[in-house]
Amino acid sequence: MHPLMKQIEELRALVGVALDDYEPAQELGTLRAPLRYAVGGKLLRPLLCLASSDALGVDVAEALNAALAVELVHSFSLVHDDLPALDDDTERRGKPTVHAEFGERTAILTGDALLAEAFRLAATYDTPAIARELATATVRMIGGQQLDFEGLPDRAAVHALKTAAMFEAPVGCALALADVDEQDAWRAFARELGLLFQVVDDVLDGDGFAAELGEEGARRLADGHAARVDALLAELDVDTTVLRELADTIATRTA
Amino acid sequence: MHPLMKQIEELRALVGVALDDYEPAQELGTLRAPLRYAVGGKLLRPLLCLASSDALGVDVAEALNAALAVELVHSFSLVHDDLPALDDDTERRGKPTVHAEFGERTAILTGDALLAEAFRLAATYDTPAIARELATATVRMIGGQQLDFEGLPDRAAVHALKTAAMFEAPVGCALALADVDEQDAWRAFARELGLLFQVVDDVLDGDGFAAELGEEGARRLADGHAARVDALLAELDVDTTVLRELADTIATRTA
Repeated sequence: MHPLMKQIEELRALVGVALDDYEPAQELGTLRAPLRYAVGGKLLRPLLCLASSDALGVDVAEALNAALAVELVHSFSLVHDDLPALDDDTERRGKPTVHAEFGERTAILTGDALLAEAFRLAATYDTPAIARELATATVRMIGGQQLDFEGLPDRAAVHALKTAAMFEAPVGCALALADVDEQDAWRAFARELGLLFQVVDDVLDGDGFAAELGEEGARRLADGHAARVDALLAELDVDTTVLRELADTIATRTA
Repeated sequence: MHPLMKQIEELRALVGVALDDYEPAQELGTLRAPLRYAVGGKLLRPLLCLASSDALGVDVAEALNAALAVELVHSFSLVHDDLPALDDDTERRGKPTVHAEFGERTAILTGDALLAEAFRLAATYDTPAIARELATATVRMIGGQQLDFEGLPDRAAVHALKTAAMFEAPVGCALALADVDEQDAWRAFARELGLLFQVVDDVLDGDGFAAELGEEGARRLADGHAARVDALLAELDVDTTVLRELADTIATRTA
């Protein structure tokens, strides 16, 4: 580790503080409350952004807005996915979903506001690269959501669009801030981590690949992703201690 | 007019061609059809972007993606506003609204995709300024929509957020592309034009200010905005022929 490199718990604390300090735009008025209500949870994506930034020698303070923006896009997708016309979920993270708590109209506008706020934060940078990463990932995620609703058999394609893209974006932001030319191994690592996350999610929820392949089959699939994550981390020319810890957290999570 | 300056009909044709040529991202899959279905209409905002760009000496070809992005944000707002949980409108521009034609779930995702696509186009520029303009305007528009639903008495504040912001954005994009430092008069002009548009809209629909002040009162209000648009145009140090024509089109439109 380079001497000033941060531990995962420090990075986690920084994400927490950034979220607490985050002020939605004044113009959103009474939407600010449901917007803040919607954000929270495991915060893996912003943590991945900070860990990648730190490993690449980018000041994590510089990466905070990008990290936050990624989390806001993720939150936007959850608020809209939970709507009655989509998954119709009334509970998330042990509390009512936004539409269950604030009504459907407010939930639609809150999701919209989260996405707009994400791009407001992304556009605070001198480079358009952060907004570019987010836009690419958001488009893919929405395409994946649509593919999922169509019930097509290609679950891997759905995961690649719906989940892996939003793991690639935080790493892509870090790469842009660090001005890295050779990005392939980093991006492949990020996508594998996203796929690992999703398969573990399927196992924990008993749906998706767990329903298709059985728990054991899905676990084997997850092990494959975890092994590829490890192999890709080994290709990166930086200290990957914290990124490995994060990957382990994702591979072994139980909730 | 500078010798190569374009007529309003040329600009209108350019916007039309750009929209026809616009290809939503492949990853959106079957959402591309409802997305294209949702875009169209008067195209005033992209026209304003091109007219401002041309007046400022920016190659209109360079401004096309910004112009298109602004229209996509506008379309996003209409698709979501029409939803059952918001305005519950089943017809727009003489055809079924997106949710009436494709269902509510698809309409929610189509609106989301339009917003993401807008930022994808905005992020094709070397500068983050285009994304910044769009994000600022989108946040304001959503805040205005929320304020409108709250039924608060301040209609002018609603219009300023909900409509004027999305007229300021296309001009703001042109100013960024032209690297203009003194932006106040331009931005004031753009906002006045937005307010003029909205009051005329109220008159044509018999709601909003027309319901509050009567048709004659609303017409007087529109005349005030039109006079301020004229005065602000006179402050701009460029040939405003086409911008004046556009303002006249807005002031005198009957549909």
